Amino acid sequence: MKKWQKQDALRQFFSQLKKFKRVHCPIFASMNEIKHISSPQNPLIKKIVLLKEKSRERKKSSLFILEGARELQMALRSDYDIQTLLFCPEIIEEPEVIELLEGKAIPEVIAITKGVYQKIAHRATTEGILAIVQSKPHVLSALTFKNRNPLILVAEAPEKPGNIGALLRTADAANLDAVIIANAKGDLYNPNIIRSSVGCIFTTTLALGSTSEIISFLKENNIAIYCAALTASERYTEIDFKPSAAIVVGTEATGLSEEWLQNATKNIIIPMLGEIDSMNVSVSAAILIFEAKRQRDFE
Amino acid sequence: MKKWQKQDALRQFFSQLKKFKRVHCPIFASMNEIKHISSPQNPLIKKIVLLKEKSRERKKSSLFILEGARELQMALRSDYDIQTLLFCPEIIEEPEVIELLEGKAIPEVIAITKGVYQKIAHRATTEGILAIVQSKPHVLSALTFKNRNPLILVAEAPEKPGNIGALLRTADAANLDAVIIANAKGDLYNPNIIRSSVGCIFTTTLALGSTSEIISFLKENNIAIYCAALTASERYTEIDFKPSAAIVVGTEATGLSEEWLQNATKNIIIPMLGEIDSMNVSVSAAILIFEAKRQRDFE
Repeated sequence: MKKWQKQDALRQFFSQLKKFKRVHCPIFASMNEIKHISSPQNPLIKKIVLLKEKSRERKKSSLFILEGARELQMALRSDYDIQTLLFCPEIIEEPEVIELLEGKAIPEVIAITKGVYQKIAHRATTEGILAIVQSKPHVLSALTFKNRNPLILVAEAPEKPGNIGALLRTADAANLDAVIIANAKGDLYNPNIIRSSVGCIFTTTLALGSTSEIISFLKENNIAIYCAALTASERYTEIDFKPSAAIVVGTEATGLSEEWLQNATKNIIIPMLGEIDSMNVSVSAAILIFEAKRQRDFE
Repeated sequence: MKKWQKQDALRQFFSQLKKFKRVHCPIFASMNEIKHISSPQNPLIKKIVLLKEKSRERKKSSLFILEGARELQMALRSDYDIQTLLFCPEIIEEPEVIELLEGKAIPEVIAITKGVYQKIAHRATTEGILAIVQSKPHVLSALTFKNRNPLILVAEAPEKPGNIGALLRTADAANLDAVIIANAKGDLYNPNIIRSSVGCIFTTTLALGSTSEIISFLKENNIAIYCAALTASERYTEIDFKPSAAIVVGTEATGLSEEWLQNATKNIIIPMLGEIDSMNVSVSAAILIFEAKRQRDFE
């Protein structure tokens, strides 16, 4: 069978499959009304570019842009509302897109040309799939925990999207009860954060707040506050992390604010034995988190 | 006192200081013979650009380019030979440069214009100082250890310069006996590795070799081999890291090669409890290294 024959047979098969499924599966109903965009000047494409580039736009509209097949699946499984799905049939075929959706219906599906995709995608080599997604508010007061003795990571004013992404990957691997960002510099739906978190931004329970709000919240919930500080005297390995605990880390440049240090149950230190003593913030956080997990027997 | 008067007084002071020091300090002798380069077309400037961009050029000449005041100090303190020092007087003044050198003589010192600096510097906002430096061979067989029971990190074929930099920062903080790179993809003196290591590339004992060479070396020296593997059954916390040990990590994409896994004393796992289970390689390495340090009481 030649390549075009194979493709033709495949197309026929999926066409029949669609006819069959149209009756049974709502997703196919929407997929049948696929719009097409071929102009980079299209207003929706311009809106997507804005949403990718401007934190202000994302905050104003409570929307953000997601890119990639895995990220889409993670967002869907974590009950994010996909407003519009865009795919480039030159890169990913319709059946593959349908499979990714796992039966979930999407209000609007748009096929775009490769030229349009390259204008809005982070890298031209990615999977040919993008979505406009409703962001979540991540309200601190609405935070609830899986465990009775939660283990939480708090990061104050983290700067680099890559560091936030790495923190979220560690939070997922450790199955933390929550990650709370204090005095966030921007919104969490920066494309670089989403990308560097490899989808962990969708699997992790997140909340935002000011340093004062978070300290009050932790105290009200009887959660011990352990602040990582280069000037602390107590080693992190001497802390009992089995009761409810929040591990708090600051920026690499300036560390934690005085407000945190003064409200800490204890300020803790990772002994630094080298000449330069400068660890990456996501590395320090991981060392503290996994010491807590070790003490909790990775339960 | 007006600004120009202050500058004038300062200039006079340093001029006198130089006259005084010329007799006593060899560095000032060389500093008095400062050359000047103002053309980006100068052959030396072209050579620097090549050394920054091409691993092949660095390997062929055993030279590399270092940028930044802190990096220069670290390299000097670790007995790297500086061949040529370039500084931009519009950004950093001569006295500051002299202070950085801590009395060490440099064969050639060149003042460059801002235009030339911007052509060769990584970012135009950096400290105005660059150097052509002799690289070290990092021969595996020449490796010696500070401790009787050394703790070593081995990274097989690490890809991203940022990850290698973060590994070196952790290695410095933990005061590891050595970091060994197996089947290195490029040379270690890639400007992005130097930068992301914040100078730790100069403070860490480094060696290079093939996977086979390193396995033989570790076995000959009775160093236990603990390979991080997602498929392993033994938790890293169950290992006794007090005797001589090498912690071996692979790439995020493919993990370690079969050769490592089959030659391991034990393959070990960090329990992953999340949905995505994908930690950054420098984060995983740090968790393993600091568990070993904890067991060794951070000695």
